[in-house]
Amino acid sequence: MRKQLFNIIEPSNNLTTIEKIYDVFMVCTIVVSLLPLTSKTTTSFYLTLEAITTIIFIIDYFLRFITADYKLNQGKLSFVKYPFTFLAITDLIAILSSVFFWNNTFKLLKIIRMVRTIRVFKLFRYSKSLNLLINVLKRQKESLFMAGALVITYIFISALVIFNVEPDTFKNFFNALYWSTISLTTVGYGDIYAISEIGKLITMISSILGVAIIAIPVSIMTAGYLEEIEKEDTESK
Amino acid sequence: MRKQLFNIIEPSNNLTTIEKIYDVFMVCTIVVSLLPLTSKTTTSFYLTLEAITTIIFIIDYFLRFITADYKLNQGKLSFVKYPFTFLAITDLIAILSSVFFWNNTFKLLKIIRMVRTIRVFKLFRYSKSLNLLINVLKRQKESLFMAGALVITYIFISALVIFNVEPDTFKNFFNALYWSTISLTTVGYGDIYAISEIGKLITMISSILGVAIIAIPVSIMTAGYLEEIEKEDTESK
Amino acid sequence: MRKQLFNIIEPSNNLTTIEKIYDVFMVCTIVVSLLPLTSKTTTSFYLTLEAITTIIFIIDYFLRFITADYKLNQGKLSFVKYPFTFLAITDLIAILSSVFFWNNTFKLLKIIRMVRTIRVFKLFRYSKSLNLLINVLKRQKESLFMAGALVITYIFISALVIFNVEPDTFKNFFNALYWSTISLTTVGYGDIYAISEIGKLITMISSILGVAIIAIPVSIMTAGYLEEIEKEDTESK
Amino acid sequence: MRKQLFNIIEPSNNLTTIEKIYDVFMVCTIVVSLLPLTSKTTTSFYLTLEAITTIIFIIDYFLRFITADYKLNQGKLSFVKYPFTFLAITDLIAILSSVFFWNNTFKLLKIIRMVRTIRVFKLFRYSKSLNLLINVLKRQKESLFMAGALVITYIFISALVIFNVEPDTFKNFFNALYWSTISLTTVGYGDIYAISEIGKLITMISSILGVAIIAIPVSIMTAGYLEEIEKEDTESK
Repeated sequence: MRKQLFNIIEPSNNLTTIEKIYDVFMVCTIVVSLLPLTSKTTTSFYLTLEAITTIIFIIDYFLRFITADYKLNQGKLSFVKYPFTFLAITDLIAILSSVFFWNNTFKLLKIIRMVRTIRVFKLFRYSKSLNLLINVLKRQKESLFMAGALVITYIFISALVIFNVEPDTFKNFFNALYWSTISLTTVGYGDIYAISEIGKLITMISSILGVAIIAIPVSIMTAGYLEEIEKEDTESK
Repeated sequence: MRKQLFNIIEPSNNLTTIEKIYDVFMVCTIVVSLLPLTSKTTTSFYLTLEAITTIIFIIDYFLRFITADYKLNQGKLSFVKYPFTFLAITDLIAILSSVFFWNNTFKLLKIIRMVRTIRVFKLFRYSKSLNLLINVLKRQKESLFMAGALVITYIFISALVIFNVEPDTFKNFFNALYWSTISLTTVGYGDIYAISEIGKLITMISSILGVAIIAIPVSIMTAGYLEEIEKEDTESK
Repeated sequence: MRKQLFNIIEPSNNLTTIEKIYDVFMVCTIVVSLLPLTSKTTTSFYLTLEAITTIIFIIDYFLRFITADYKLNQGKLSFVKYPFTFLAITDLIAILSSVFFWNNTFKLLKIIRMVRTIRVFKLFRYSKSLNLLINVLKRQKESLFMAGALVITYIFISALVIFNVEPDTFKNFFNALYWSTISLTTVGYGDIYAISEIGKLITMISSILGVAIIAIPVSIMTAGYLEEIEKEDTESK
Repeated sequence: MRKQLFNIIEPSNNLTTIEKIYDVFMVCTIVVSLLPLTSKTTTSFYLTLEAITTIIFIIDYFLRFITADYKLNQGKLSFVKYPFTFLAITDLIAILSSVFFWNNTFKLLKIIRMVRTIRVFKLFRYSKSLNLLINVLKRQKESLFMAGALVITYIFISALVIFNVEPDTFKNFFNALYWSTISLTTVGYGDIYAISEIGKLITMISSILGVAIIAIPVSIMTAGYLEEIEKEDTESK
């Protein structure tokens, strides 16, 4: 009977009707459990939703725990190891954040609530169409990591320059980093911008170089995608 | 004679002069029929335009209806089925929105007018150069759908985090979703932005990840385009 | 002697020293002739610059005219045809705008000055490295034209919808078109933006679709570039 | 012993433990030396940091100088040539900027501090994963240079047109150039924007063309990346 349970809760290649129902039901529960976060006031309706979804997640966690030996294939040791796997930890954090949501001090609410958004990552557990994308990301991992490092270095240098050239505009270095990020990504809210001529000149150079640097990860992604598609075409022939 | 009419109103591969004239005439009529929407006041000139274009659309709809058997090739049944095809329904909605535009209550005007913009989609009925693009979109349909789901999920998560971290800036969750979308697409009007330090930090992370996520559909489109062009080159050899 | 003059003013494949000097001299003259446009006040220094550069351009135009038969290879007929070639017309407009700049009424100044910026296009007459780019643009002409039509259609529809949904924000339809363009290109100055909830919803949909539509010409350009580079590699083998 | 020192300070293909420690230590020192720049006030803690890091950089410079013959392989001549190599000059500027930071007049501080950010470029001395990117940049150097020239020309023309059409919005030509750059890169802070109808029309045309022009360097980068990856795949087979 535990074997059957495991087959239901764990998505396999050949899904039966009952497995599909469980999957869809869990995805819906995750989405519903996030609804209380979209409101400022805590109504009794949201409290009920919170209670029901938390109970479902506790049951799901319990079922996964008692079938852990089928998952990890390590006999009794599986029950010790399972709670420390990445997905089990995210499940636990999501459940605990809900429990703390009940009996809490008001101050902590803010941060604990944020942790609950981790719950959304559970959605991907039930998705398959991300495989191509994940393959591209895996193969271009190093290049993308390098591009990310370049972007962060550039943001830091750009912030450093503007902060020393125009210190009156920026309250502290964090504000300069914020300005640099918002400019590089071309969002440009307009809440902080350089006022002096030299500051504007640096903004101009920074924006143009920024667009060029943003182009690097886009290029890597595109080249990676194309390579992956071509490989699949060759394999399918 | 109905056969001749059908040949005129329905674009085929070898266009004769009269067919081309009909096509150009209908495209112009569609554009002209949209002109009254670009003004706040309803002058008698616009009312006349409205009347004339609506009559033309009614005639066009009638001609298409009585030649439906040539279109669908299902004998008498065609006349029953035709009004429920996608293009016939859009034609009907466009006509009805104009008719309601005559004798209406003022309040409904706003929404009905919006429906009329559907009329523009009729333009594509007369265009052929979109084929390559449509092929790319069709072949990459699944990947693009996945990328779209990723973008929407990301907007939702980003809104959820900022809404709980900085509730004072956002009147309701819809405003947080609006902020998230405007930031992710790098439009950044600057009407809503995070004020607290933690909110700014989330804005920074959100923007950088946002640019990376926007790069995914761009990559898919480019890779798809290149594949399609290469295939055409191989076929033409 | 006219033959020698022609060889100097017309760039050929094997440039001699004197030809290069003429080219560099003309490019500098063009840049210098634009300097008076970068100032609000008309100083005597700028008037002198204006006079000198205009005289140089008149001489250049005259030299090109008297050697037109070598350019067009149509004997005496060349002297009649030459003034109506595209480059000769732009040369003439640039010269005339400077002449009108001398004895003018103040009101006309603004528009005439704008025409003078055409002068910059003469720069490309002396450049060769644009060939690859021009080849890509030529080969993808139809696709890019289609993408351009799509972008303009989308801007128009987006403006039409917002103008009818939120008429209070937009003074006239032109302002709606301006908002639509600034949003689609993700510039987002923040001088005009939707205030109502329904208007914000349309902004969100509009921005996301806008990014997707902007991706189309970028994809076409990239695919075209790659095709051109690969072709050159094959040819050079 | 000088030979051993050289092996430690100069990264080679087969890194030993001591070489790795030196590399990591220098990268950390560079980052730490930049920390005083992120604060407006000069505390004694930052002055101490400044002193320590400067001394480390002086020792590093000295060690590199006395092992210059192993680096340049030109015997005694190496010691004369080394201080004029690019990296040695950046090292020297970084050290001098710190020394001037001690005993200085207040006015000069601003500019000298900026020079110190050059120090960050030393980070790349210790990085290897940038090779693929550098290869792409090298191979596409001419195309990217041309694209850069096109972008700058476009910014200049765009600024010239708006400055003459709407002179009241822009204090001087530099402001027009600033507006043009911020619009082209789609940052759009919203601190300067066209107000007149004709100015808005130019903004619209400018933005759309701007996005198209920005697409050119992105295309070149992507095509270059893909070519480089394909070449590596062919070589590894």
